[in-house]
This record gives sequence, C-alpha cells and structure tokens, in this order.
Amino acid sequence: MKHIAEIFSQGEEIVCGQTVDSNAAWLSQQLVELGFTLKRHTAVGDNLQDLVALFREIGERADCCICTGGLGPTSDDLTAEAVSIASGQSLQFDAQAFADIQQYYARRNRVMPEANRKQALLPQSAIRIDNAYGTAPGFALHFKRCWFVFLPGVPSEMKHMFTTLVRQRLLQRFDLQPECLVSLRSIGIGESAIQQCLANFAWPDGVQLGFRAAVDEVQTKLLFSAGFPEQEKHDCVTAVAERIGDYVFAIDGLNEQQGDLLDVVTKAMSLKSASLALLETASQGQLAAKCLGRDWLTRVEVNLDWGRNTGTGDAGADELPAIAKIWSEQLKAREQTDFALVQLYNGSAADYRDKDKAIVLYNALATPSGVVSSQLNAYGALKTKQNQAASLALDLLRRYLQNKCN
Amino acid sequence: MKHIAEIFSQGEEIVCGQTVDSNAAWLSQQLVELGFTLKRHTAVGDNLQDLVALFREIGERADCCICTGGLGPTSDDLTAEAVSIASGQSLQFDAQAFADIQQYYARRNRVMPEANRKQALLPQSAIRIDNAYGTAPGFALHFKRCWFVFLPGVPSEMKHMFTTLVRQRLLQRFDLQPECLVSLRSIGIGESAIQQCLANFAWPDGVQLGFRAAVDEVQTKLLFSAGFPEQEKHDCVTAVAERIGDYVFAIDGLNEQQGDLLDVVTKAMSLKSASLALLETASQGQLAAKCLGRDWLTRVEVNLDWGRNTGTGDAGADELPAIAKIWSEQLKAREQTDFALVQLYNGSAADYRDKDKAIVLYNALATPSGVVSSQLNAYGALKTKQNQAASLALDLLRRYLQNKCN
Repeated sequence: MKHIAEIFSQGEEIVCGQTVDSNAAWLSQQLVELGFTLKRHTAVGDNLQDLVALFREIGERADCCICTGGLGPTSDDLTAEAVSIASGQSLQFDAQAFADIQQYYARRNRVMPEANRKQALLPQSAIRIDNAYGTAPGFALHFKRCWFVFLPGVPSEMKHMFTTLVRQRLLQRFDLQPECLVSLRSIGIGESAIQQCLANFAWPDGVQLGFRAAVDEVQTKLLFSAGFPEQEKHDCVTAVAERIGDYVFAIDGLNEQQGDLLDVVTKAMSLKSASLALLETASQGQLAAKCLGRDWLTRVEVNLDWGRNTGTGDAGADELPAIAKIWSEQLKAREQTDFALVQLYNGSAADYRDKDKAIVLYNALATPSGVVSSQLNAYGALKTKQNQAASLALDLLRRYLQNKCN
Repeated sequence: MKHIAEIFSQGEEIVCGQTVDSNAAWLSQQLVELGFTLKRHTAVGDNLQDLVALFREIGERADCCICTGGLGPTSDDLTAEAVSIASGQSLQFDAQAFADIQQYYARRNRVMPEANRKQALLPQSAIRIDNAYGTAPGFALHFKRCWFVFLPGVPSEMKHMFTTLVRQRLLQRFDLQPECLVSLRSIGIGESAIQQCLANFAWPDGVQLGFRAAVDEVQTKLLFSAGFPEQEKHDCVTAVAERIGDYVFAIDGLNEQQGDLLDVVTKAMSLKSASLALLETASQGQLAAKCLGRDWLTRVEVNLDWGRNTGTGDAGADELPAIAKIWSEQLKAREQTDFALVQLYNGSAADYRDKDKAIVLYNALATPSGVVSSQLNAYGALKTKQNQAASLALDLLRRYLQNKCN
C-alpha cells in the first residue's frame, strides 16, 4: 500500500515570494525515494488561523507531512501554537529542549535572549527532534490520520535533521516500498515528437509515463512500481530508448546515473584522454562557459562576425558545410588537439533576434578518423537559440563519442 | 479592501521535487506589488481528481489565483479538463488558438503533431491569453468567488504573458492600491555589509525593508505603503543609496526601471555609440555569452590558460595589474574600439575549484581617457566564481560609464 505524503512550508517570505522554497523540492525527493506518494505542497504565511485550518486539512488527507519553518523565537513563529490549537492539546515546557538551547548560547559565549524560551514549548504528545546546528528543536506527532514532522526552515539545519534522525524514523514507522524512476534524457527532439514515437507502445502494467522539458533536453520518465521485475524493466527501457532513437544521450536510474550532456561527454573524453579545440559563433562563448572546469577543452575561439572578419566574405549558405569542415581540420592541425569543433551559422542578426525565425547551424567536428558534421535549426528567443546552438554543437561530439554519427 | 490571492502550480516534477518551483515566488512578488494579499501556495501533481478538488477549494477561498503548468500537449497535461469538470462546463474548440498553434509550427517549417490540437480546447467561459513564445495558450475564467488565470509552466512564456497581458487585466478587474516597491540594485557588496551600512537609519513609518541576494547582485528592497508621500519617498531612497555607495548600479521603481547590470551598461554604451573589445580568462566565455545581442561588444577573446599561451610565463601576482593594463591598451589599439576590457586572475585550477578558496581578479579597462582598473576576490563554488568574474569585469565598465572610477 502506498502512503500519501505532503510537504508544508510556513513563512511570509515564501508566500510573498521573497524566498524560493527549495526545501519543499528537496524533501519531496527524499520522500519519493523512500517510497511515499507525494500529493501536495502547501505554503502559508505567519497567520495563526490559516495555520490551524491547514493542519486540520492535511491531517485528514495525508499519512505523513513534513513541515518546515515557524519554529523560531520571534512572534511570527506560530507553528507549535497552531498545532496545539488544531489538535486540542496544550503546550508543555520541555526541560531537555530548554537545556539544549541554553547550551547553544553558552557554547558561543552569548546570553540566551528571553525570547528563545518559547522554542522549548512543545505540544503535549510531541516527540522532540534535536537540532545539532541551531536553537530550534523539531518535533513530530500523530494527529488525525497523519504523522506530522516539524523541522526548522533553515535548509542546513533541516537537511541535517532529516538525514540523521527523521529518515530512519519514517522507515520504522511506515511499511515503505520504494518505486524506481528511470529517465531517458534526449536532445534535438521535442516532447510531442517523443510522444509520437511512443504511440501504440505496449506499456506493461505498473509503469507510469511522464515528460519533463528543460532548457537543453527533454526527459522521458518511466516510473516503475515497487517490485516490478528487473528483467522486464530493462526490456521496457531498452524498447523505449530504441523508439526515441539516437537523440537519447543518457539513461538515469537503470544501472547508474549518467548525468547531463556535458557529464556524458566529459566521461567519454576522459576515458580517451582526448582534447578539444572549439570555434564558437552562434553561441557566443556559451559553450566554452558551460565547459568551465572540464579539462578536455583546451582552446577556445569566439568569433562574433565570422563572415566579415575571416575572409570568407559573403559565403552562401550552401558553402557553409564545406567551410566548417575545412576550418575544423585546420583548427585541429593548428592546436594539435584530438578533436576540433567548428560551429558556423546562417541567419542575419535580425533573424537571430526574431523569436519566430530560425537560424541554421552548421557544425563540423574534426576527429582522428575524419570530419563528421551536422546541420540543424535553432528556434526561439535570443537566449533559447544561443542555448540550442551550444548544446547541439556539443551533441555532435557526443554522437561521435557514442558511435552515433552517420 | 485587500484582495486575497493564491498561487497554484501543477506538475508531477514539482510535487516530486525534481523542479524547484521558482514560478510561485516570482508570481507572488508581482501580486504583492500590485496590492494583493498573498495567502497560500499549493502544488499538486498530474492527477485529475486532485486538481478538481483543489480548484473547488481555491474557488471558495481566494479572490484571485494564478495557476501555472499543465497546459502542454501531452496526456499528463490536465488543467483544462480539470477546470471544466470542477466548474461544470464543457471544453470548446478555440479556432483562433488552434490557428496560432498551427502558425507556431508553420513558422518553424515543422508539421504540427496531432497531440497539440488538444491545447486549443478551452473551458466554455474562458478568455484566451495568447502565448507569443510557445504553443500553449493561457486562459482566465471566473469560478465561485475566484478569478483564475492559467499560464504555462515554462518560466519565460509565463513571465512574458503575465507582464504583457495579465498584469493589466488584474489592474482593471480589481480595485487595487498598489504599494510601491523600490529596489536598489548593487554589485560587489554583500547583504550583511549593506545591513551594516543601514544600521541606525531613521526609517519613516510605512516603509518595509527587505533584501534579495541573486547570483550577480544584491537588491535592497524598500516597500512603501500605498499613498506614501512622493517627495519623502525620493528622499528616503536617495539617503539609502548614499549609505550603500557606488556599489549601487541601478534603482528600479522610482522613476523608471533601470534594469540589470547589462542593461545599464548597454544604455550608456548606446548613448555614446561606443564599442568594446574583451579578453576573458577567469569567466571563460561567460561574459561574452551574457552580452549576446548587445551590439557594442564587437570582439571577444577567451584565453583558457593565459599564463602558458601568451608568453607572460609565470608572472607573479604583483605583475598582473601592469600586464592587464598593457594588454588592454594593446587590445584597444589593435581592434580600434572605444574600450578594451582585459580580465586576468591569480589562482591555481585547484583554487578555482575549491569553494573555500578565493581567486584574485585583475581587470583593466582601456578608455579614451586612459586605463582604469580593479582588483577583487571571487569566492565560492566553480560557477559562482565564474559568474562573479564576469559581472565584476563588466562592473568596471559600468563604473567608468557612470563616472564612478577612482
């Protein structure tokens, strides 16, 4: 049986948008991995009535709720009070919690402000969760059908408490069967085209299909239910990967995490101890910038106006593949690298700026065994085109390294 | 009377924690500035029942709700269907929306996948909100006490639609008394240092102070209550800006939006019709990449290993300011530009990677009236250092253009 979990975040700074709530995403990932079914995130501000109403709602909907924030010493920290009202139990002074708070200040040679005394008041039935990094103890209690866990909103404190104390208690308390998420990561193909590739696919029971489109890639996500047979899972993933084709550059969650396009290229380049020289035009430094810290990139040229500055004059679009090819060979010879990647493009500055117009990318990669090339369109707003230009040039190298060049 | 607003985000990737929901924070800030009272954020996954239940709940609680996600072409995009069930109205085919989607593909010389037809189905009473950047139209409708606005989850599309279409409609629809938010945007100074600058500042009633630290800047936010006297507001902002000093590169919300560092530099460079040649080292193409579409940048060099490749050998750190100065003069002369910016740095590859170690940046800017320079530390993880290197080099140009070089 799957257990339903929710995440609740308290804080005016979250509801008013001054803080992006990254705690909720982090906690959700932890709970998904443990085998919970995540149903909802909620955030409300520092208002007692809203908090009380929300705890009652969640208490009826979820089996488990991890809550962050509202445990501080100030007057807008209302969590313990709201829980005590919602659940009809009084707050009790926890002597151990108070001693810990006093010690926290004593170790820093500071006097405990009187306000912090409040943090030692916990609902009667609560189990205290010690906070090794701050003054706010967390606590957990059962209310209606839900096991509530309250943690501070400071990410470092919250994560430490969850990892060292809460995770283990959840595994003891719930009969959890972790699901398995496999992500097929692709570049150069859109979400709806992938869906067409997968039309009429005979899905086995216990697989849930989802998609996620990020800036540089589309992820096809297969969520396999707990206990799904291992061999069948491999077969299903392989069949899906074949349908999508060589756009797939990595599969995460099957054997190992393979990572993003840059990770995949970096692993392959490191295996070969290979080096790359790069000439960028359309991406204007973006590909070099992405490669920061990757030692295989040894030489970069950025050419803002390659047609004017490089003596090719007004070369026609039909000459660009040949020019890119020759330049990549020259660059490789000059820089003495294993690979040289040249990116050219066709399209005016106005085309580049116009989100409704495409520019055409011509990539050529000089390799130890000759030149391979690609010709692709980049669409969208300025930065989208730039990102595509960078990723699609890198993808030519990936395809060669994975033996997927035609 | 204050109007109650909520934010709702749809998507399995949000509820399961693969994506941090930054849309909710951005939208909340917009609504707070418009004068709404923000009460709640909610996120649920791609489950029809959960969506229907949630729309009914919000319809009873809020006056306005901005919803993102679930408008895509795939089977897990359920927003329109859920709204139609919750509100008891059928979905209707919107011929204009369909024509827009077809055009989107036609402009890209691609065939519209059949799946995208679904995006033209909108609830009967809905007002369509056009999406200039993607295939998913948004829509808005009144249900129970609440005005619901549905926007795509892709941040660039969502922000563009909100800014150009939704904001204006909200101002027409609701009787709002916008507070006035003034942001002092600074670079090169941290949040706590700004806080110290402002210690003992005599705040007038009706001003709320906040901070927001982004990758490239810190924003000091002054929220003035509705009806705050104009002159007093100007005086307060001026006094705060003086306390913070020449780290402030722009003030947004007082007279006009001045924008980010790149916008400020672009405006000044355009006024002068000036051009820049750039040599990057530490930021490895990042500064050039940021300047995409800004015509004043006419020449870029990226040097991955300036010490080895450029004949300076193992120059000591004390020689770097002089080398940067000479190179900037040479670059300006060679490229015949108005300005030439050279960025050098001192620190090993290991220092660059180590988040606990700093690298030292040496920037020199050759100008029509001599060379100005800066020497600064970059801290943090790899990408943080890279971003700082790019922004702090650009900031030297900004300081010169604003006559703030010493």
